[in-house]
Amino acid sequence: MTIDIPHPLSALSLEETNLARDTILKCHADAVLKFRLIWLFEPPKAEVVKFLESEHSGQLTDATTRPQRLAQVRYDKIDGKKQVEFHESIVDLRAKKCVSDEVVSTKLQAGLIISEFEDLAEACKTSTFFQQKLAELKIPEGFEVVIEPWPYGAADLADGNTRFFQGLIFAQDTRSGNPDSNFYAYPLPLIPIMDAKTKEIVRVEEPATGGVGDALKAKTHLPTVVDHCQPSEYVPELLPKGTRKDLKPLTVVQPEGPSFSITNENLVEWQKWRMRITFNPREGLVLHDIRYDGRSVLYRLSLSEMTVPYADPRPPYHRKQAFDFGDGAFGDVYFDGVITDAQGNAIRKKNVICLHEQDDGVSWKHLNWRTNRSVVARRRQLIFQFSVTLANYDYIFAFKFDQAAAITVEARATGIVSVVNIDPGKRSEWGTVVSPGALAQNHQHVFCVRIDPAIDGHSNRVVQEESLPVQMDQRVNPQGNFYRVHKTPITTSIGLDADPLNNRLFKIQNAGKINPITGNPVSYKIVPPATQLLIADPKSTQRRRAAFGTHHFWVTKYKDDEFYAAGRHPLQSRVEVGGLGDAADRNDDVLDTDVVVWSVFGLTHNPRSEDWPVMPVEKLELNIIPADFFTENPALDVPSSRDIGSRLVTDVFTNGA
Amino acid sequence: MTIDIPHPLSALSLEETNLARDTILKCHADAVLKFRLIWLFEPPKAEVVKFLESEHSGQLTDATTRPQRLAQVRYDKIDGKKQVEFHESIVDLRAKKCVSDEVVSTKLQAGLIISEFEDLAEACKTSTFFQQKLAELKIPEGFEVVIEPWPYGAADLADGNTRFFQGLIFAQDTRSGNPDSNFYAYPLPLIPIMDAKTKEIVRVEEPATGGVGDALKAKTHLPTVVDHCQPSEYVPELLPKGTRKDLKPLTVVQPEGPSFSITNENLVEWQKWRMRITFNPREGLVLHDIRYDGRSVLYRLSLSEMTVPYADPRPPYHRKQAFDFGDGAFGDVYFDGVITDAQGNAIRKKNVICLHEQDDGVSWKHLNWRTNRSVVARRRQLIFQFSVTLANYDYIFAFKFDQAAAITVEARATGIVSVVNIDPGKRSEWGTVVSPGALAQNHQHVFCVRIDPAIDGHSNRVVQEESLPVQMDQRVNPQGNFYRVHKTPITTSIGLDADPLNNRLFKIQNAGKINPITGNPVSYKIVPPATQLLIADPKSTQRRRAAFGTHHFWVTKYKDDEFYAAGRHPLQSRVEVGGLGDAADRNDDVLDTDVVVWSVFGLTHNPRSEDWPVMPVEKLELNIIPADFFTENPALDVPSSRDIGSRLVTDVFTNGA
Repeated sequence: MTIDIPHPLSALSLEETNLARDTILKCHADAVLKFRLIWLFEPPKAEVVKFLESEHSGQLTDATTRPQRLAQVRYDKIDGKKQVEFHESIVDLRAKKCVSDEVVSTKLQAGLIISEFEDLAEACKTSTFFQQKLAELKIPEGFEVVIEPWPYGAADLADGNTRFFQGLIFAQDTRSGNPDSNFYAYPLPLIPIMDAKTKEIVRVEEPATGGVGDALKAKTHLPTVVDHCQPSEYVPELLPKGTRKDLKPLTVVQPEGPSFSITNENLVEWQKWRMRITFNPREGLVLHDIRYDGRSVLYRLSLSEMTVPYADPRPPYHRKQAFDFGDGAFGDVYFDGVITDAQGNAIRKKNVICLHEQDDGVSWKHLNWRTNRSVVARRRQLIFQFSVTLANYDYIFAFKFDQAAAITVEARATGIVSVVNIDPGKRSEWGTVVSPGALAQNHQHVFCVRIDPAIDGHSNRVVQEESLPVQMDQRVNPQGNFYRVHKTPITTSIGLDADPLNNRLFKIQNAGKINPITGNPVSYKIVPPATQLLIADPKSTQRRRAAFGTHHFWVTKYKDDEFYAAGRHPLQSRVEVGGLGDAADRNDDVLDTDVVVWSVFGLTHNPRSEDWPVMPVEKLELNIIPADFFTENPALDVPSSRDIGSRLVTDVFTNGA
Repeated sequence: MTIDIPHPLSALSLEETNLARDTILKCHADAVLKFRLIWLFEPPKAEVVKFLESEHSGQLTDATTRPQRLAQVRYDKIDGKKQVEFHESIVDLRAKKCVSDEVVSTKLQAGLIISEFEDLAEACKTSTFFQQKLAELKIPEGFEVVIEPWPYGAADLADGNTRFFQGLIFAQDTRSGNPDSNFYAYPLPLIPIMDAKTKEIVRVEEPATGGVGDALKAKTHLPTVVDHCQPSEYVPELLPKGTRKDLKPLTVVQPEGPSFSITNENLVEWQKWRMRITFNPREGLVLHDIRYDGRSVLYRLSLSEMTVPYADPRPPYHRKQAFDFGDGAFGDVYFDGVITDAQGNAIRKKNVICLHEQDDGVSWKHLNWRTNRSVVARRRQLIFQFSVTLANYDYIFAFKFDQAAAITVEARATGIVSVVNIDPGKRSEWGTVVSPGALAQNHQHVFCVRIDPAIDGHSNRVVQEESLPVQMDQRVNPQGNFYRVHKTPITTSIGLDADPLNNRLFKIQNAGKINPITGNPVSYKIVPPATQLLIADPKSTQRRRAAFGTHHFWVTKYKDDEFYAAGRHPLQSRVEVGGLGDAADRNDDVLDTDVVVWSVFGLTHNPRSEDWPVMPVEKLELNIIPADFFTENPALDVPSSRDIGSRLVTDVFTNGA
C-alpha cells in the first residue's frame, strides 16, 4: 500500500483541505466567499466496504480500486448587494472539481461559526439602544459587562427566516485584575438580539427576574440588579480559603510504555482491538472499522447530537435550547481542535484527543472454594477522550474499550450551570438559587450516540429482548419461579423506548452466523440507559425540533451521510428536518440489512447548590457488550494481575478480627 | 479518652469475643455447645448518639457514660438425646453475663456454617444410596466427583421443619493433576439432599436434562452424561493458548503515601471525610458515623442482603435460591475473613478489606472561553473493598467516597455461572448452553443496601421528587417548555419503586435545617437504580420469602438491630419474616424522625457465552449525593490536577488536523 494515498477512513490532510478550498474558490471566482468548515465527506459505504475487504484479506495493492476522496465544504457566498447564500459543496479531491453544490439557506440556517459570535459582541458595543438599556441598570463600580453569545434557539414564527443570535449578559468584577474572575455570578436581565446579516442589535429582551408568585412577565427588579449578588470564584488563586493541602500525589506509571500502537496514519491497535480514528468539527472524535481479534464489530461510532432545552417558561427563555453538536462549528474553537479559518486555511491544532490506558478494577475473578486459589484479572481499558466547552458548560466524552470486547461510551457534564438574574430573597419553581441573585434554571441534557454496527458483516438485525413473568401453572411453571425471555425482531425503522423494569435490551445480531455453543446468532447487546426523555409539551417547538429526544433507541436503515440525530442543520430550526424522526418515518425494512442504531439518553438537571460555581461531573454511560459473539469470555487470556504490575493497596485489619 | 475502652462502634476484640464465648459456656455448663458466630451486638442507637455527641463536641472523658458493650452469640445447644436447639444470645461484656437468650429454632433455621457443608460432602461419600445413583452414571476414567454444598432453598411444605442441605454435583478431570481444573464444565444430574440433624442423605433428586420441547420431568439422558462436555479451564497454566503477551504494566504510585489515615482503633479519615469501620460475618464491611467536614451524613451504611433466585421451572431447581448474606456464615470462610470456630475461639484473619485511593478522571472542569484558561480538578476516591465467594459466584463490593462529598456503593458480580447438565445438541428456554452439556440457567441477583441516614442529625424525612410535564397553557407554560418538579414527602413506612422516565429520585432531608442559599432543606439524594425487580410469580415461594425484592426503595422507621432486608434468618424460609415487608407493614410515621432507607437493585442474568467459564464483571452502582447539603461544590478547593501528580497520557494528533 502506497503511503501517500490516504486511507479512505482518514481525515483530510492539510493539503487536501487547502485543495478543497482552492477548488471551491475556482468555482465562484466572481464572488466573495467566507468559509465555515471543510472536512472529509466520507465515501459511499459500498465503496469503503469493498476496500476494507481487500485490506483485511491482505489483498490491498496499488491497483485496488479506491473509494472516492471527497471533501465537504461549507461557506457563505456574498454577492455585491450583500446577499449571503449559505452553500454546502462536495469536492472530488482527485478530480479537483466540485461535484455537488447546494444552497442550504433557502430552507435552513448554516451552522454558526465563532466569528458570528464575535459579531454579536461587537454589535452590542456599538448599539446605542443596547447601551441605553445597560445604562438603565446600576452596575457597581469596577464591574464590566460580558456578552456571552448564544444561538437564538428556535425562531418564533414572527421572526420569519431572519438569522439571529442572542446574548446572555453578565457583569464581571474586574477589581482583582484576574480575567478569570467568575462573571456568571452577576447575571444581568438583558438579552440583546442581533440580526446576523445586518450585524445590528434589533431588539433587547428584558426577561423577568421574579420568583414564586410573580407573573411570567413581571417587571420587578430595581436598577441595582446585581447588588445582592456575591463572588463565586473557582480559579484557585481567587478562592477565599485557598485549596486543600492534604491530597497526596497519585500517579499512573507505565514503565514499558503503553500497550497500544498508532500506525498507518490513524490506525489504533490495542489488546486485539483495532480501529481508525478521525476527528471532525461536527461530531468530534469518530471511530471507524472497529474490529476485535480480526472480526468486525462496528463500522462507525460517534456522538451524533446533544440538545439542552431550558424549562423556564418566561419569555424569551423558551429559546434557550442549544444543539451542542448541530448548532454549529463550536468545534472550530471550543474543541481545542482542528479546522479551517474564514479564508479556508487549514490549521493544525494539538491536544484534540487524549488516548490512554486505565485500570478499572477487577475484570473477572474466581476463588476456588476447594483449593482457596483465587485467579483475578484486572480490567484494563483503552480510552479515547475529548472535551467540548460550550459557553458555560463543559463536556468530556470518552470511548472506552476493554479486553472482554465491550465498548463504553461515557459522557461527563461539568462546567457552570446557566444562571439568570433573580430578585433578592426570592425562590423559584423554574430553577434553584445557587448564589444570591443567580437562578440556575431547570433544564435537560439529551445526548444521542450513533452506532453503525457491522456484527461479523453488514447484514444485521435488531432484536428486542425482555424477561417477562409467566403465571404459575402446573405445566410450564409449577413453582412460579420461571420467567420467559421474549425476543422480538425489529422489522421496520422505528423509535423504541427503554423498559428497565422488564429488563428490555436490544441485540444487534448477524442472523446468518450462529454461535456454535449457544445456538444463538452472534450479537452485541445494548441496554438503553433508562433516563428521562424530553419533557417539553409535544406541541412545543423545543420538542418538535428535537424529535430524536422522544425515544431512547432508534433503529434506521443505513443511508450514506445520515449522521445527525436532529438533522444536518438544526440551528434556529422550528422542527427537526432530516433527523431521526424523518429517518424512522421512511418505514424502511430493517431486518437483516445494513442497520444503524441510535441511543438517546440524558440528564434532567434541576440544579443543587453543590453544582455551583463549577459542578461536579454527572456521568452517563452506554455499554455495547458482546452477547454470544464469542464462544467464551474474550478476556480469559488476560494475565492475572500480579503478573502485570501491581496497585498500591493498604490492607486493613479490622479491630479484633 | 482511655485507649483500652473500645469505641462503641468498633468490632469486638479477640479478648471480648472469647469473653462472650466463656460467658455463654458458663450459662450452659451442662450442655454441649457448638458455636456458630460471635460478633458485636451494636448498642442501642440512643446510647451511641449521646456518646457521639460528647465525642464530636470534644467533651469525652473517662467519666462519660458509655453505651453498653454487647456481643451476639449464635450457637447450637446439643443435649444428650441429640436434640439440637439453635440459640441466639446477647452477652453484656462489662457485666459478663448473658442478658438475652432466644431459642430461634422453634420457628426459624439457624444460618448455615461451613461445617454443615462439610457434613454434606461426608454424607454423600458414605451414602450407599447416593453412591448407587452415581454408579448408574458412566463417568469417564480419570474424573472424580465433586460435591458442591448449597443451601436447600425454600423447603417444600412436605419437608416440614426439617433442616436440609442439598448438593450440586460435578465431575472433575483429574488427569492434569491440577486441583483447579474447572469441574463446573461437567455437571452431573444428581442432587443429594441431607437431613442436617441425622447427617444422612435422605433423597437424591434426579433433575431433567432435556431442552426445548421436553417436559419438565422428562428423563432423557444416557448414562454417559458428561461425555459430550468439554474442558473449560480458566487458571492460566491450563489455558490451551496461554495468556496474552502484549499487556504492558500499569502501576499506581503514591510516592508520599496515601492521603488517608487510620487511627484510634478503626477511625478512617480522608479528605474531610471520617468514618468508623467494622466487619462482621453477616454483612461484611460496615461503615459507621460517616461525616464530612464535621457534619453528620450517615449513621450506618451496609450491604443488607442479596438473593439469587433461579428461573428454571424443573423440579427441584425452584429451590435454587440463595440468600447470599442471610443464608449463613459464609462470612466465616469465604469472606477471606474474621471470626469464630465451632469451639467459639476467635480467629484473626487478614486481607479482609482493601482500602485504597483511586483516580476517577475529571471531577470538575471549566474552560473560560474568553481567556482560554482551563481549570480541571481530578476526582480522587477512597475505596473500601471486600470480596465474597459463594460457591460458583464471586462478588466484589465497594464503598467509594469522593471529594465532592458523594458516596457510591458498587457491586461487581463475577465468578462462574451456575450450570446444570443438558443433553447433547439441545437448547433450552430455561437458560443458555455455555459449554456443551452445560446449561447456565437464567436467574436474578437482587441486592439490598441499607442506608441509615443522619443528615445533620437524626430527625430526617424522605421526599420523592419527580420532574413532570406541564400542559401548554398561556398562563404558566405558554411555549410548552416548562416542566414542574413535584415533591412528595413520605409519611408512612413503605416500599416504593424507581421511575426513571419521570426522573424520580428521593431526597433525605433534615427539614429543620435550611440551606441559606437555595432555601431548601439540607439533603442527600438517591436515584434508585431502575433495575428489574423479582420476576417470580407473586404466589411463588421464591418471591414470598424475598418480599424485599419487590420494591426498589424502602423507607422504614429506625429500630435497633433491624439490619436485614429478608429478615434475620432466611435460611430455608417459606416467607420473609422480620424483613422489609414486615418493617413497612408497621405503618410507622416516618416524617421527621429517625428513618432508614433501603435501596434494592439487581441484575436479570440470562447468561451469554462470554460469561463462560468465568464471567466478566457486571457492575451495579448506587449513588448517594449531597443536594443542597452544602452551599457550593465541596470539591471546589481540590487543587488542579497538575499540582498533585500527573497521569500518563498520549496526545493524538489526528491526521491532517
